[in-house]
Amino acid sequence: MIYLDHNATTAVDERVARVMEPFFRSAFGNPSSSYQEGLDAKRSVENAREKAAKALGAKPQEIVFTSGGSESNNWVIKSLAGSRPGKGHIITTAIEHPSVLNPCLYYMERGYDVTFAGVDSQGVVDVEEIEKAVRPDTFLISVMHANNETGVIQPISEISRIAKKAGALLHSDAAQTLGKIPVDVNAMGVDFLSVAGHKVYAPKGIGLLYIREGVELEPMILGGGQESGRRAGTENVPMAVGLGTACEFFTGDMTRVTERLSRLTALLFELLSERIEGLVLNGHPDQRLPNCLSVSFPVVTGADLLAAVPEVRASTGAACHDRSVAVSHVLAAMGVPAEQAKGTVRLSLGIHTNQTEIEKAAKLIANAYEKMTRP
Amino acid sequence: MIYLDHNATTAVDERVARVMEPFFRSAFGNPSSSYQEGLDAKRSVENAREKAAKALGAKPQEIVFTSGGSESNNWVIKSLAGSRPGKGHIITTAIEHPSVLNPCLYYMERGYDVTFAGVDSQGVVDVEEIEKAVRPDTFLISVMHANNETGVIQPISEISRIAKKAGALLHSDAAQTLGKIPVDVNAMGVDFLSVAGHKVYAPKGIGLLYIREGVELEPMILGGGQESGRRAGTENVPMAVGLGTACEFFTGDMTRVTERLSRLTALLFELLSERIEGLVLNGHPDQRLPNCLSVSFPVVTGADLLAAVPEVRASTGAACHDRSVAVSHVLAAMGVPAEQAKGTVRLSLGIHTNQTEIEKAAKLIANAYEKMTRP
Repeated sequence: MIYLDHNATTAVDERVARVMEPFFRSAFGNPSSSYQEGLDAKRSVENAREKAAKALGAKPQEIVFTSGGSESNNWVIKSLAGSRPGKGHIITTAIEHPSVLNPCLYYMERGYDVTFAGVDSQGVVDVEEIEKAVRPDTFLISVMHANNETGVIQPISEISRIAKKAGALLHSDAAQTLGKIPVDVNAMGVDFLSVAGHKVYAPKGIGLLYIREGVELEPMILGGGQESGRRAGTENVPMAVGLGTACEFFTGDMTRVTERLSRLTALLFELLSERIEGLVLNGHPDQRLPNCLSVSFPVVTGADLLAAVPEVRASTGAACHDRSVAVSHVLAAMGVPAEQAKGTVRLSLGIHTNQTEIEKAAKLIANAYEKMTRP
Repeated sequence: MIYLDHNATTAVDERVARVMEPFFRSAFGNPSSSYQEGLDAKRSVENAREKAAKALGAKPQEIVFTSGGSESNNWVIKSLAGSRPGKGHIITTAIEHPSVLNPCLYYMERGYDVTFAGVDSQGVVDVEEIEKAVRPDTFLISVMHANNETGVIQPISEISRIAKKAGALLHSDAAQTLGKIPVDVNAMGVDFLSVAGHKVYAPKGIGLLYIREGVELEPMILGGGQESGRRAGTENVPMAVGLGTACEFFTGDMTRVTERLSRLTALLFELLSERIEGLVLNGHPDQRLPNCLSVSFPVVTGADLLAAVPEVRASTGAACHDRSVAVSHVLAAMGVPAEQAKGTVRLSLGIHTNQTEIEKAAKLIANAYEKMTRP
């Protein structure tokens, strides 16, 4: 089995699994309890918060643990919209994750205005369109840091300048970028940033939301005073600790991680291109995640091709099954013709992927492709 | 260390820890992926859902996994209120958990009407008051199954008759009852029921909401189509599996669990009463959880007493630190005098608590109490 679907989910890193273990055994205290086990649990969560903050260039008090990226994304949109009943304008893009798109649609149906900015044929968000869309009542701009299907990195710091000028808050979904490229909340100039644990070798069921100091955000889950009153509910201590440890892997200089992934991804594309005539890379050629290839194969469908290479785990698009996705909304927004979109496979590498796997995967895919298209 | 704070949180059961382990290692697939690892993950979540449903007398499709009891409670209140902008009436009680009280207060501040029904001096909710409070626009009645501080069990099936007659939906927070007494959604006659994993020997970070078939509830987290479109976000596979396994412990005949807890709790009260004159049991003498003693010690404060018995882990009240709790709102609602409330300690037993621990705890507490009150 060669796992090339790291944009869908990652295996929990052994180091993450190890730090979580005690919390599934003896270290079970409630962080709100005042005896030793409680204090230990609380300290463990705070240590994790410091590590997560460090990875993002943030302060610990700016990090709130959530149940995942979808909760983080929903929280920002729902709380900001909810505190402005019946009016206001949101700018987002046509290529966001469903956990951004669907809350936006929800408020649109309830009388808010939403602009879905388009992207160019390389999948880059149209900054000018965002700038032109700004209105006096624009209260939120939400643009993902990099797209989950194409890996195209979006010009967040440029958009930040627009948001600042407009007096709007800026949110970015960084579910796909942490662990692959540097993520720095100040360099990006965001007010909110979402992270999903299971995309960075921490488990499913944990995430975080960065909230810039001084920015108000009504809690989405009300109750006890956990997370400084911003997110009620007994803390997911084991997984917060796990996410903290995972964040340590991606703190500071990311050059080694980035270069290694880039090299292997380039090799994969090269090996495939050598054997498959007409193979097309979707998205911007350079402004992209180092781990991700969205490639369209002529003649065949992505689903048929993947079914013919069961050893290679990859996907035809996003793993988050939306209510009604037939052809990828991301490729459609880029103007990719339906025929090309249907032949698309997303191959996404992880920090443990090695060259042998890449060579083997390329061979298996190309063999299957040749067999399928042999006259 | 003798752990008598099971109403605050429980240690993860060894059997639960074991079933979760593979999901922190090799079984890491995204349930939305269509290859083997994804299908396996999906099946594991569905198996867990079946187990959870069975424990509650529900159908699998009536169970939605959440991040915990607080999310479940918030979801019901926020979604029902949110879909009726600006009007309507909720009935709840003065002794609910903050994750019910605070969302209710939130909507009260925004123009909804909320009735907080009182309790009698034994902590039992005033059913007549609820009946009288019903109005044509009452859309939700939310009453906890048993109180976390006193352990008093509430007359949910009686309240269900009122709700049905009124055409209001009924929610019950069962965070404290599963694992201690039988919890059957049909016997209770509820439309919604919340469960918190970490109170039933599953980990912190998982919970569920029972939603009666045919009852509509807008999702709180929008995005991908997970959980049949009712709760977006990649599933917390390991912990859902853990909660499913924990639910198996409490499926079917609960007599053995209940009787064992009752016997040990009665012994603890007897041993303490023998040595401490004027010890008062808070709450109803019989209509109570078999694992829980809320007792008030004369003269001393609960906090001072617990500090003097560091070997015994217990609490003076709830573990969920609210924004501003000085004296327990539960004891206050019962009309417990402030002096008595201050001397209160909550001792809550678990399925692994044994008689030796109870005898030792009683001795340690009584010794400390005598030392503190020696003239």
